[in-house]
Amino acid sequence: MIETYNSIPKPETDEIVQRLEIAHQRLQEQQLLMKENKLPVFILFEGWGTAGKGTVLGKLLKNLDPRFFEAKSIHDPSKDEKRKPFLTRYYTEIPEAGQFKFLDSGWMTEITKDVLFDRISKVDYKNRISSVLRFERSLTDNGYLVLKFFFHMSHKEQSKRINALMESKETAWQVDEYDVWENKHYDECYKVFDKFMEETNTSTVPWNVIDAKSRKWAELQVIETIVAGIDVALKNHSLTVPLIQNIFPLKRMPKLKDINLNKSISEDEYKTQLKELQEKLENLHNVAYLKGIPIIIAYEGWDAAGKGGNIKRVTAALDPRGYVVHPIASPKPHEKSRHHLWRFWTRLPKTGHFAIFDRTWYGRVMVERLEGYCTENDWQRAYNELNEFEKELSDWGAVIVKFWVHIDKDTQLARFTDRQNTPEKQWKITDEDWRNRDKWDLYEQAVDEMIAKTSTTYAPWHILESNDKKYARIKALKIICAAMEKKIKESK
Amino acid sequence: MIETYNSIPKPETDEIVQRLEIAHQRLQEQQLLMKENKLPVFILFEGWGTAGKGTVLGKLLKNLDPRFFEAKSIHDPSKDEKRKPFLTRYYTEIPEAGQFKFLDSGWMTEITKDVLFDRISKVDYKNRISSVLRFERSLTDNGYLVLKFFFHMSHKEQSKRINALMESKETAWQVDEYDVWENKHYDECYKVFDKFMEETNTSTVPWNVIDAKSRKWAELQVIETIVAGIDVALKNHSLTVPLIQNIFPLKRMPKLKDINLNKSISEDEYKTQLKELQEKLENLHNVAYLKGIPIIIAYEGWDAAGKGGNIKRVTAALDPRGYVVHPIASPKPHEKSRHHLWRFWTRLPKTGHFAIFDRTWYGRVMVERLEGYCTENDWQRAYNELNEFEKELSDWGAVIVKFWVHIDKDTQLARFTDRQNTPEKQWKITDEDWRNRDKWDLYEQAVDEMIAKTSTTYAPWHILESNDKKYARIKALKIICAAMEKKIKESK
Repeated sequence: MIETYNSIPKPETDEIVQRLEIAHQRLQEQQLLMKENKLPVFILFEGWGTAGKGTVLGKLLKNLDPRFFEAKSIHDPSKDEKRKPFLTRYYTEIPEAGQFKFLDSGWMTEITKDVLFDRISKVDYKNRISSVLRFERSLTDNGYLVLKFFFHMSHKEQSKRINALMESKETAWQVDEYDVWENKHYDECYKVFDKFMEETNTSTVPWNVIDAKSRKWAELQVIETIVAGIDVALKNHSLTVPLIQNIFPLKRMPKLKDINLNKSISEDEYKTQLKELQEKLENLHNVAYLKGIPIIIAYEGWDAAGKGGNIKRVTAALDPRGYVVHPIASPKPHEKSRHHLWRFWTRLPKTGHFAIFDRTWYGRVMVERLEGYCTENDWQRAYNELNEFEKELSDWGAVIVKFWVHIDKDTQLARFTDRQNTPEKQWKITDEDWRNRDKWDLYEQAVDEMIAKTSTTYAPWHILESNDKKYARIKALKIICAAMEKKIKESK
Repeated sequence: MIETYNSIPKPETDEIVQRLEIAHQRLQEQQLLMKENKLPVFILFEGWGTAGKGTVLGKLLKNLDPRFFEAKSIHDPSKDEKRKPFLTRYYTEIPEAGQFKFLDSGWMTEITKDVLFDRISKVDYKNRISSVLRFERSLTDNGYLVLKFFFHMSHKEQSKRINALMESKETAWQVDEYDVWENKHYDECYKVFDKFMEETNTSTVPWNVIDAKSRKWAELQVIETIVAGIDVALKNHSLTVPLIQNIFPLKRMPKLKDINLNKSISEDEYKTQLKELQEKLENLHNVAYLKGIPIIIAYEGWDAAGKGGNIKRVTAALDPRGYVVHPIASPKPHEKSRHHLWRFWTRLPKTGHFAIFDRTWYGRVMVERLEGYCTENDWQRAYNELNEFEKELSDWGAVIVKFWVHIDKDTQLARFTDRQNTPEKQWKITDEDWRNRDKWDLYEQAVDEMIAKTSTTYAPWHILESNDKKYARIKALKIICAAMEKKIKESK
């Protein structure tokens, strides 16, 4: 029952005015503390049409420093947005460290509308709920404060408001078609809302139901809840998060030391197969494009293992309008100040397109782990976060292929030396490469752990034996083609 | 899928032995830190029959200091236990601060068995899940580390073990009837277990699935998980918990200042009504006893408001074998070192019996709040914890009546003075009473907040105007009788 959430009886008007003043002032002070402590605050406004979400949001923003917040209205997904995974438009909107982000309606509206308009199956609904729970948990695990408000009013009150607004031309525009539909189907909507809220009312991101009958009182409830939330979040700033056991099906993988690197291919064989496979890939891409299947290829591997050349042989087969290669370096400041997966959520392909990542989201459990760019708790938690990320992509229908381009230590030394001694290749070798090489054993241990913990059946790792680069290229093309053929078959 | 939880590939035997030694040593060190930091650790062992829970537990305990742990086997509830709310036997088992408590199977086994043997309706199952989620959340909110293990093995492996054990007389006793039944209905059990685990796999108390095929490996997984869990819990020791909005239906209640205390009753009227009502109550108790309805009466109120005399007029009507009066003073050390509700969970009546509390679990939001015996976060969170506690009692079928025995400040002064000046009443008045009186306004504010936030429809507060004690007694009896009549009617 939605109305049972909110237990606070409405105080006298005098008291409301007084407390509002105090709360606004507290919030202003907290903005500075948020900045100082790099706390990101993500606030979702949901509720009945005409319940006054916009008005309260307006009041709230007027008292905040505009350098430290963004507010956004979310509408039905556009055609382009529908070509991305469900969570994309919410993940891309998460605030930077030290900032507020306000969403005027969001994932609740999108999902419950899909239910009300029969656009979603029961299974898909259940998956959406799981996605939302993981999304919210992953944000709070990574230090976000997430607050969800639901502006509630009775059927009678909504009818009254809609009628009042419709009476005058100057206000009638404030009522949209959906508000009217919602009011006509109030009981049905109530049931769907109530169920959604029950299923997403967690102890870390609970629902806050706002009694929306009085505007001032609604404003006070919202601001006081935000103030209390920020207080708690600031106190818990150095929280260590319990690790959750993996729940996704994993494939058993060999350790790197057990990989036979003596695999090679003759020049003739290479040329013949390369041509055949690239033609095959081109054709498969056409089919995938028509079917709207997105393809995500992730490359990781030792320095000088031959990632670049390998990627070239893949892209050579593709229509340039249908793919993007994302070289992933260390995160830029605006990326670093967000959830570590944000910069990948914003780089997803559209349906039917390829996105090829030259280094990936796995930096979290390799370089960031080994160089201490994140805490131990951060990278230990990340295995699950990465599996969850790829689960979203897989549920969306993407082909996901992950390559570890593998060479041995001697081969790397030979290639480094060659690069250093060949003027036109010198740009390819840096001091950092040598420093990383010194940490080979630590990296090998981290990679073994990564491959063991993130080779899910829906996004497995493939090891490319790349002492012979040509062998690795042919193997990569074969794996990509096979994965695409499988997905195309399933989608029939 | 239960087997997908556990992602850790089994290491070589040498490594297991080595890591076991390290883990056992770490655990011993942590025992002292737990003691120092007053961390209570509650560990649940669940899993398939013959999966080796007992063996691992034995190994674990051998390496721990016996002063700091208790281990308990939980079996099917006894006849007496069935006369208490479902959570009682688990709440009463929670460890003291600084101690381990191990349960060899617990709430998962009880609930899933009820499902498998068709002893529980779908609605009751859903309620049990909610109870478990609240129980676990309330423990972690109050600083407990709760770890849940599920010992998993395949159908084939279980069959193999059962057969091997049955072959010899010396080991056959280790297999009980339920193990055999479980093995015969493995797939059915699997489904029920999997569903239960999915529904109770939260981010604060996740399931840890243990690959039980190898004993040593199982032992290592368990101990390493415990060590990691304690590490996290010690780091998060001063955690502030986000407040969850109330989700239970509340009644609107007046503020104390708006209560008309000029209500009274004539001596004649009092005598007549008292006799009538006590007879009625006696009869109702007989009916309630036969129907197995438990009755819980909670008294709070100002010092010298007349609680004691009021309680006497109730108990006068009852069969002494059918009720207990619990005077609640400040908690004893062994009570203080547990969850604040523990001493009430251990004092619940059996079905058909009365439990009358002279002062109650509401101390948390009155004296403990005002005297600083708990943190602000503790008492703010408590409103919800108290509503949840009473929800368990109500779902169990109890009549819950809560009285605030109310007088004004002048009446209190008159009664205090009278007590002080009457030798045989002097024991009734202490310095503390005078000190509390000085904080009347603060108490009034706290009581108003308490009554507003915890007057649920299933356990509402009743205000007894007790300037005239006789009026208050008659009103109390009427309310108790009415509440019992209502429940008896519903239970027909």
